[in-house]
Amino acid sequence: MANKPSIPKGTRDFGPVEMAKRNYILSTIREVYELYGFQQIETPAMETLQTLMGKYGEEGDKLLFKVLNSGDYLQKITDEELLGRQTLKLAARLCEKGLRYDLTVPFARYVVMHREELQLPFRRYQVQPVWRADRPQKGRYREFYQFDGDIVGSESLLNEVELMQIEDAVFTRLGVRVQIKINNRKILTGIAEVIGAADRIVDITVAIDKLDKIGEDGVVAELKEKGLDDAQIDKLRPIINLTGSNEEKLATISEVLKESETGLKGIEETRFILDTLCSFVPGSAAALHNEIVFDLTLARGLSYYTGAIFEVKALDTPMGSISGGGRYDNLTGIFGMPGLSGVGISFGVDRIYDVLDALHLYPADSLQTSRVLFINFGPRETAYQLPFVAQVRRAGIKAELYPDAAKMKKQMSFANAKQIPFVVLAGETEMAENKVTLKNMSTGEQSMVSPDELIEKLKA
Amino acid sequence: MANKPSIPKGTRDFGPVEMAKRNYILSTIREVYELYGFQQIETPAMETLQTLMGKYGEEGDKLLFKVLNSGDYLQKITDEELLGRQTLKLAARLCEKGLRYDLTVPFARYVVMHREELQLPFRRYQVQPVWRADRPQKGRYREFYQFDGDIVGSESLLNEVELMQIEDAVFTRLGVRVQIKINNRKILTGIAEVIGAADRIVDITVAIDKLDKIGEDGVVAELKEKGLDDAQIDKLRPIINLTGSNEEKLATISEVLKESETGLKGIEETRFILDTLCSFVPGSAAALHNEIVFDLTLARGLSYYTGAIFEVKALDTPMGSISGGGRYDNLTGIFGMPGLSGVGISFGVDRIYDVLDALHLYPADSLQTSRVLFINFGPRETAYQLPFVAQVRRAGIKAELYPDAAKMKKQMSFANAKQIPFVVLAGETEMAENKVTLKNMSTGEQSMVSPDELIEKLKA
Repeated sequence: MANKPSIPKGTRDFGPVEMAKRNYILSTIREVYELYGFQQIETPAMETLQTLMGKYGEEGDKLLFKVLNSGDYLQKITDEELLGRQTLKLAARLCEKGLRYDLTVPFARYVVMHREELQLPFRRYQVQPVWRADRPQKGRYREFYQFDGDIVGSESLLNEVELMQIEDAVFTRLGVRVQIKINNRKILTGIAEVIGAADRIVDITVAIDKLDKIGEDGVVAELKEKGLDDAQIDKLRPIINLTGSNEEKLATISEVLKESETGLKGIEETRFILDTLCSFVPGSAAALHNEIVFDLTLARGLSYYTGAIFEVKALDTPMGSISGGGRYDNLTGIFGMPGLSGVGISFGVDRIYDVLDALHLYPADSLQTSRVLFINFGPRETAYQLPFVAQVRRAGIKAELYPDAAKMKKQMSFANAKQIPFVVLAGETEMAENKVTLKNMSTGEQSMVSPDELIEKLKA
Repeated sequence: MANKPSIPKGTRDFGPVEMAKRNYILSTIREVYELYGFQQIETPAMETLQTLMGKYGEEGDKLLFKVLNSGDYLQKITDEELLGRQTLKLAARLCEKGLRYDLTVPFARYVVMHREELQLPFRRYQVQPVWRADRPQKGRYREFYQFDGDIVGSESLLNEVELMQIEDAVFTRLGVRVQIKINNRKILTGIAEVIGAADRIVDITVAIDKLDKIGEDGVVAELKEKGLDDAQIDKLRPIINLTGSNEEKLATISEVLKESETGLKGIEETRFILDTLCSFVPGSAAALHNEIVFDLTLARGLSYYTGAIFEVKALDTPMGSISGGGRYDNLTGIFGMPGLSGVGISFGVDRIYDVLDALHLYPADSLQTSRVLFINFGPRETAYQLPFVAQVRRAGIKAELYPDAAKMKKQMSFANAKQIPFVVLAGETEMAENKVTLKNMSTGEQSMVSPDELIEKLKA
């Protein structure tokens, strides 16, 4: 007996409705990237483990899906190695390939391998699944799509400006109100420098981020608990209670950072990005539709970002970050090609999907279903209908013919279940007049129409 | 030192130009499928080995990429098993997942798992990569895209008719002249029945297929060599020299098959498909643009097809089959759900890519590049240009701003290399008049234009 089939845990099937929704999101993002001159690339699902290992920390190495070598994969492995049972070490001998874990490392590898063909600055977008052997849980999958856009080979902050415009344009098109947060790694580095606690920057941002919840005293207590002394905390005080406009916050911090060259550079970069974005006439094509906020506590990707850091949150539904990114000065250094700066963003397609679901933001026509179903009454009627079906399709209208002469009721239920808005019927009367009857499934209205009228009504 | 990066053998990167070409093919096929009421699904890259193993023959099992279990994958394996080194058996203990080998088995698995939600007949298309640990060689890759369309839950031959229209429509849109070949498994079964050599049907079709090359005597000699006796060959004789129109060929064969119920059923099915397709007024929307030919020697997929068999070949360039498919009566039986008939086709995206390349059939505008590059003269000019860039994009025109104030020559070469047809320049004169200079990169023509004129000219 055949067993009941299943799929690997943490993976999902996408049916027609889910696909239509996801395609709506993907095509929206794709259109915006392309308006900004980004071009698509794809890389193989499998990369060599040499490319992947050591790029995501020790934990990441464990979360890589590794692909067993083909053929006699045990050939070069000794009995001692097998019986040693050192799983991680042995895995690297059993497997030389793994599934990609993100799109950034494959992109870095791509840039290095294809540098001769590339026109720098290179703007690429890439939308492909990635795989992580994480413990599956609600909203976290072992296979999920990332949609990345990066610009490499230019240090200009105009790239940051354009990426913020892209974030804004994508969520405006999707109808999601968002807040765009921006920070800069150099500012965080500067703070650590000034108080002489370079390794404490994450603790500091985590504590400051709790201001709303635990108040200034609470933050100070937490900083003490993390080992900061009074002198250090005093230096941080203006930052803990940071309020006001973006410009006011930056002014306060630049006072604190006046001794740190790096910190001031971070301020300057952030100012340029914000000033440029705010220089546009409100309501003009270049102006943002969403608020952009300088947020000192934004500390994502500290292990690789070197300049600007971005994060986007949906305003009207609780859901972590739905997009984010930043500047990394040495993307390709890990593959022996130093000195190439890049800046990029990534859209969390699955989370955006859930946001649109929660806020009912999918447009009615995003469901990719047929506009019309031709009802099948039998061979003669079908032979009569086939040229009609073809004409409708030639006019660019999605149409299907029910393939079997099933009961009328069954065919009508089929149209309803698939949310097909029109059906076409043709019997003796219609055939005598070279017409068909078009029925609107929601109003019940029906009328006999010529081929031209049929197309006209279906297009309306 | 970092090692030079590489990718697994048999896999490929797709850069912007390759992606643009492939996207052109994929969107053409997608549009046609959707006009015919097909809806997209996606399945996970990894399936359980239980789903995959035993579905592609013994050779197929070896060609599956298997994914090492996460965590302590050796835990349940004894020392004896390890030292036994039975690679295939041990692989099934080390791995419980594999990468999909085609889209058909995952689709069957999908139908069984989601049968409650599906509206039958269900028309689905699916375009995803598949992986095979084949020996890589020219034109054969370890990762490649398939683009399948199937209809399950209907035995109506109208499905076959529509699939042939889809094949015709796709290649007509792509500009590739093709021949569509059709045969029927039941006819082949009938022939085997009539001559009492059920296991010889492949040998017979292979021999008959050589008629053009080796003549009737040659074919007869080969059939003898394969073990057929004179009486059997005599019965086959009318078939060996099969000529004439589709109808004439079918008439000849039905004479040979008059004792075989199955064979005659195959003839009847083929006649229905061909008669229906040929009943349309030539040049009308329903009529085929390409020739459809009954070909008795077409014998693909004999292990699973049970009715019609299709194959499509390009006429103007040598390249094996670029699409094909057929009817399989028991798609989901392997997963415990018998009695569900299906019929489908698959487009070989990589081969179609090569055909379009060889015949230079990519439209000029299929390259997804920006329409215009704004030249960067420095911060002031850039600040002036940014609103122009945004307006152009809002008008739906792909545009980029060179992010760095590099030398003019470098920026112009960049535009040329990326095949960007226009550049925009703005200096003192333009800024004073609220205009920009638009330059056509191929003619060298340039003129000063207002924002509205700019958009108008770029759209032209």
